[in-house]
Amino acid sequence: MGARLVTRLSLITALSLCTQLSLQAQDKNLVQYVKPIIGTEKMGHTYPGATVPFGMVQLSPETDTLPYEMNGRYNPDVYKYCAGYQYVDKTITGFSHTHFSGTGHSDLGDFLIMPTTGKLLLNPGTATNPETGYRSTFSHDNEVAEADYYKVKLDKYNITAELTTTNRVGFHQYTFAEATDQAHIILDLMAGIYNYGNKNVWTFVRVENDTLITGYRQTNGWARTRTEYFAMSFSKPISQYGHQNYANDVYKGFWRKFDVAHNFPEMAGRQIRAWFDFKVQAGEKIKIKFALSPVSTEGALANLRAEIPGWDFDKVKQDGQAQWNKELHKVTAQLNSNDEMINFYTAMYHAFLSPTTYMDIDGSYRGLDQNNHKAEGFTNYTTFSLWDTYRALHPLFNVIQPKRNADMVQSLLAHYDQSVQHMLPVWSHYANENWCMIGYHSVSLIADAIIKGNAPFDQEKALEACVTTARHRSYDGIGYYIDKGYVPEDKSGASVSKTLEYAYDDWCIAQIAKKLGKQDIYDEFIKRSLNYSNVYDASIGYMRPRLNDGTFRVAFDPLKTDNQGFIEGNAWNYSLYVPQYPAQLIELNGGKKRFSKHLDSLFTMHLPDEFFAETEDITRDGIIGNYVHGNEPSHHVAYLYNWTGEAWKTQERVRMILKKMYHPGADGLGGNDDCGQMSAWYIFTSLGFYPVCPGSDEYILGSPAVKEASIQLENGKTFTVEAINQSDKNVYVQKVTLNGQPVTRNAISHADIMNGGRLVFQMGAKSKK
Amino acid sequence: MGARLVTRLSLITALSLCTQLSLQAQDKNLVQYVKPIIGTEKMGHTYPGATVPFGMVQLSPETDTLPYEMNGRYNPDVYKYCAGYQYVDKTITGFSHTHFSGTGHSDLGDFLIMPTTGKLLLNPGTATNPETGYRSTFSHDNEVAEADYYKVKLDKYNITAELTTTNRVGFHQYTFAEATDQAHIILDLMAGIYNYGNKNVWTFVRVENDTLITGYRQTNGWARTRTEYFAMSFSKPISQYGHQNYANDVYKGFWRKFDVAHNFPEMAGRQIRAWFDFKVQAGEKIKIKFALSPVSTEGALANLRAEIPGWDFDKVKQDGQAQWNKELHKVTAQLNSNDEMINFYTAMYHAFLSPTTYMDIDGSYRGLDQNNHKAEGFTNYTTFSLWDTYRALHPLFNVIQPKRNADMVQSLLAHYDQSVQHMLPVWSHYANENWCMIGYHSVSLIADAIIKGNAPFDQEKALEACVTTARHRSYDGIGYYIDKGYVPEDKSGASVSKTLEYAYDDWCIAQIAKKLGKQDIYDEFIKRSLNYSNVYDASIGYMRPRLNDGTFRVAFDPLKTDNQGFIEGNAWNYSLYVPQYPAQLIELNGGKKRFSKHLDSLFTMHLPDEFFAETEDITRDGIIGNYVHGNEPSHHVAYLYNWTGEAWKTQERVRMILKKMYHPGADGLGGNDDCGQMSAWYIFTSLGFYPVCPGSDEYILGSPAVKEASIQLENGKTFTVEAINQSDKNVYVQKVTLNGQPVTRNAISHADIMNGGRLVFQMGAKSKK
Repeated sequence: MGARLVTRLSLITALSLCTQLSLQAQDKNLVQYVKPIIGTEKMGHTYPGATVPFGMVQLSPETDTLPYEMNGRYNPDVYKYCAGYQYVDKTITGFSHTHFSGTGHSDLGDFLIMPTTGKLLLNPGTATNPETGYRSTFSHDNEVAEADYYKVKLDKYNITAELTTTNRVGFHQYTFAEATDQAHIILDLMAGIYNYGNKNVWTFVRVENDTLITGYRQTNGWARTRTEYFAMSFSKPISQYGHQNYANDVYKGFWRKFDVAHNFPEMAGRQIRAWFDFKVQAGEKIKIKFALSPVSTEGALANLRAEIPGWDFDKVKQDGQAQWNKELHKVTAQLNSNDEMINFYTAMYHAFLSPTTYMDIDGSYRGLDQNNHKAEGFTNYTTFSLWDTYRALHPLFNVIQPKRNADMVQSLLAHYDQSVQHMLPVWSHYANENWCMIGYHSVSLIADAIIKGNAPFDQEKALEACVTTARHRSYDGIGYYIDKGYVPEDKSGASVSKTLEYAYDDWCIAQIAKKLGKQDIYDEFIKRSLNYSNVYDASIGYMRPRLNDGTFRVAFDPLKTDNQGFIEGNAWNYSLYVPQYPAQLIELNGGKKRFSKHLDSLFTMHLPDEFFAETEDITRDGIIGNYVHGNEPSHHVAYLYNWTGEAWKTQERVRMILKKMYHPGADGLGGNDDCGQMSAWYIFTSLGFYPVCPGSDEYILGSPAVKEASIQLENGKTFTVEAINQSDKNVYVQKVTLNGQPVTRNAISHADIMNGGRLVFQMGAKSKK
Repeated sequence: MGARLVTRLSLITALSLCTQLSLQAQDKNLVQYVKPIIGTEKMGHTYPGATVPFGMVQLSPETDTLPYEMNGRYNPDVYKYCAGYQYVDKTITGFSHTHFSGTGHSDLGDFLIMPTTGKLLLNPGTATNPETGYRSTFSHDNEVAEADYYKVKLDKYNITAELTTTNRVGFHQYTFAEATDQAHIILDLMAGIYNYGNKNVWTFVRVENDTLITGYRQTNGWARTRTEYFAMSFSKPISQYGHQNYANDVYKGFWRKFDVAHNFPEMAGRQIRAWFDFKVQAGEKIKIKFALSPVSTEGALANLRAEIPGWDFDKVKQDGQAQWNKELHKVTAQLNSNDEMINFYTAMYHAFLSPTTYMDIDGSYRGLDQNNHKAEGFTNYTTFSLWDTYRALHPLFNVIQPKRNADMVQSLLAHYDQSVQHMLPVWSHYANENWCMIGYHSVSLIADAIIKGNAPFDQEKALEACVTTARHRSYDGIGYYIDKGYVPEDKSGASVSKTLEYAYDDWCIAQIAKKLGKQDIYDEFIKRSLNYSNVYDASIGYMRPRLNDGTFRVAFDPLKTDNQGFIEGNAWNYSLYVPQYPAQLIELNGGKKRFSKHLDSLFTMHLPDEFFAETEDITRDGIIGNYVHGNEPSHHVAYLYNWTGEAWKTQERVRMILKKMYHPGADGLGGNDDCGQMSAWYIFTSLGFYPVCPGSDEYILGSPAVKEASIQLENGKTFTVEAINQSDKNVYVQKVTLNGQPVTRNAISHADIMNGGRLVFQMGAKSKK
């Protein structure tokens, strides 16, 4: 009796403490600094719409819709619509429910909803002649984009559109300024995002009753076989409805039985657009709850009912923003200016968009084997842009989102279990493997989690998955790599990039093997991790493509990107990619002094236009000299000065990159945000340290941009960074202490952070050369 | 202790009794009389392949495969391939796993397997130039078609193909006469059966390991949205494999990563053909187990493992034939000749093919709402050709397959629950409503089950489903029918057929309402059941199309079928369709004498060729005079003499029809078997009685063709028919007794049968005029 009483009292104390902490956290509104509009111009490929952290629904406006006729042909003009929205556009075609954030490939854009009035037009029309279709003009003056809230006035129809979401449900609120008997909600199942145009395989819509619609859409796009299910609920009854089928589907069963186009409750086909009509008063709102599911309309309906039982738009918005505020409070930071506060918290926002939740509230999701599975004991995630995000995003999660990151690793392992190739994911996407970019960087995530002690999963099995993946001879030159120690360019393109990244990944596997006491695996992979040196041409001082006969390829230009043995980087940048052995890399390149000068040249040289044109996914703002920050292979490069004895150059460079590459405007990102990797770089670097080699437990120090920042760790501890004498000019670190003790080796460990404590940088305007 | 002992002893006694009964039943081999080849020539539309009673898999040869280029265009030439096989053809393209039996529309033909040797050819080639493709010539001399067993020699490759099945698994056994390093098994996912050509929406194949393949096929054919999953297991490891994609699918993810065409374990696309290679010795067998599932590859694999754990082909065949023997023993009959024995038991066989099982071993199936459901407490069936089968097939099941028939009704009710139109099925097909033919004859099945006391389901709910269906105003003229008492021809075609059939269905609903004590519903529908008279034109003595303005249409020819207000029948035949009120119909037609003469004319007149050409689905053998037995609307007609006081004419006619319309050859059926309806007519009529009006408990007597027949009822009782002095000439009934008591009213009741007993016909060569 006594023990129970104590327990209850402790519980009450704990609860009240939680409430207090929670209130304190809520007190400070960090959501105000989030500007989803950042990166929506040019190459950022972010979207301005509404979503919750790691949410399954990303409800956002589309400013162009692809012509469905361009079946299978690549159209470079639509590349900029990877996230559906370009800031310079003058029209909106509608609001769809799924969007990538910052990717360099396109897909999604499922279930486009557009409210209109007057004569029913079912085609989107064109940007130059919006009056020919359902799209509307709009102005940024009438546009609000916040975390989990988007608002815009659709000028053509005098409709105010507002969007918010829960994890699995998009909530639309359309306010019609004028009364009309002809208010339409269009559900365009032909609309979608894809560089190769129309990707529909099949779509299906059921009008269950006069307020509930269900259905699904199956596509063959970037994801080869993706099916998304939905349930859509209207706040008032439909007066009439219908659809048009634009494809020559062969089913003839309705022959003479029904008027299928009008008020027939079952619509299906390859290319259909549906419409739902309402009568509205002036000022009346039509609200729509639109739930998704990876497995069934039944699942979507359950998600809808569980997540938004009522119709209170404002409450859903407030709850969504409260969620964001809570997540943003994982780091409470003070920076030099409001613009930097915006940059920092928008980076936090962008870092917390992907990977996205991929399961129903009951844990059901579709697997790679096309069967339905249930996630037992973890949240299943998808949208793994691993070539980008292994570098800083997942290491960041191991600090501030460890529970989620462990679940993400579990999701990778589930993918492995379901993979018929018996491989960990390369680019995992809604029950598909997109096979995009190179390497097998899942192993980096797994190593980083295991080495940092955030691995509540079967580690032996995880190691087996890593080893099986890395030994998959038929994948992308691995057979040659195993036999020869490098990928021959005449056998498999981008061979140098592959060789270098495989070698790093192999080092990661070796670290796991060491930790688990598997000496034979350690030996095998630590040997493979040295393969980087096999593509180094000492005669010219660059990594260089090598042929199957062992010779280096003669044709070679270290400034060129295309067809030089690299991908998304030229030899200048990629030759610096040996994150597992920076000291050896420097030795290989003639020692610290020579290497340091080489790095200087990278940042100061001019990359001629002809070569710039070949860099992918970035604007001219995305490079500094020949340093390409807009692509990922260089993300660790500015930190390499730490190994040359010139840490002050790292400090100078990283502060310059923070300033040059990140702005608070729509064009504020110099390249694709890449599912948060660019943002994660910003966050780490602003905090004063960076994971140069994920899979190690080490963070390399740079120059903090924060004045002070506290990381609220999930273990209840707090790790604080303080930068004394911080300013835009005082970028040079004079002295560093951790919990009052000097830090001498320009690095801290993961344990240093997780134990809580205080990292203090003494800043100054002069470098400590 | 004593009680337990008694129980155990009883159990042992019961078991040994069962075994004895079972042995007795097995003793007589009724399977010997089953000739699946019957009906495979011309219009029978049956298939010769292997299946178990009501099995999910129908594994049968295809003698032609449709060109996939004819997308969406109707091709009358392929109509004859509704079941995939035509007896006159000289080549076989392969063996696929799903087939309709006897339908007048086409679909299915899923997963065509073809074994070949030598150079790999992936196209089927043509019948005239088989050497250009994978198809093989064959001879009927080398063909064996039995219940659940099919064997043929593929001459081109010197391969003997053998097929057998369990409920959900097809078992192939291919014996290669010659050794070769180039033995191929082709899996053609483009092959299929459909009048409108290629119907593929998407296909997917995974090579799980070197003996196991899984995948699915999604089509838009007669069923609008049908997906069938499979798991295929080889008896020996594949040496190499690959596929070719014939469509321009837009997925580009494999770009440069893999040789997708060879040994890549994940194939997908709209149009693919896969191949699997083996080395074989002379005389070696390659066996394949191929399981289906309506919900998932996981389900298919579970079905495969549960139903055929080993590789014993002969045992599976024996088990399948034992199942057939057991089902055939539901009626042990003796007929006048071996040919008639063959006709009878092949009719039993054909009657026990459809509806087909549509659920996994764990009860999972796909619903009309596209969600997966579990059948709780019943077996879920699909392939309901109700316009045909309500007449005699389901009444037959209420006698000899009552458990299955009750489950079939449960399947209809599940369909209703999942129907977005809130309607009972019209033509229910693999989670689709095909909307084929007219009426709402599900209500007939439900009424027949309830009236006959075979209704272990929620009868109130069933009545509600009937009423909701019958009040569905937007379906096929029902709104007009409700308002005007008939369907106006100028509003909805085939209006007379619809009016007549709705009126009969309404009578069925009234019977249910009466039994359940729902007076208001009874009143509503008994009134509607009289609507038949609204389309009777007394001035000419025929049912005739009526217009919306109330007048009869002027243009009219009672011999024509096309565009006369009827479907699959002309006014001559359809004017006799008032099964619920034969006496009133006769009255309407001027009394018994006039009506009897009218019937005589039907059977004896000559139908000119120009009119015959318009009858559907039948050969010239399918008519007698103008009596069209090959279509269903006349199936009760020969029995109508019973109401004119000239029962002897019924006796004469039905014996003539049995003789003329059913033969033991490949061309032995004069029209589509229609999922067993033609066969059920044969069985009832041979037994000497027929359900003229399903939904009543009455069977009208005819003239038995059996010498003696015993029906083994599921309630353990036996009902025996004996025809004393039976012969081909002695077709006239002299006297009938039931359990020794004279039967005077030319009818028996369902209870008479179910109580067990003995119905004795005294036959003679002279009619009792």
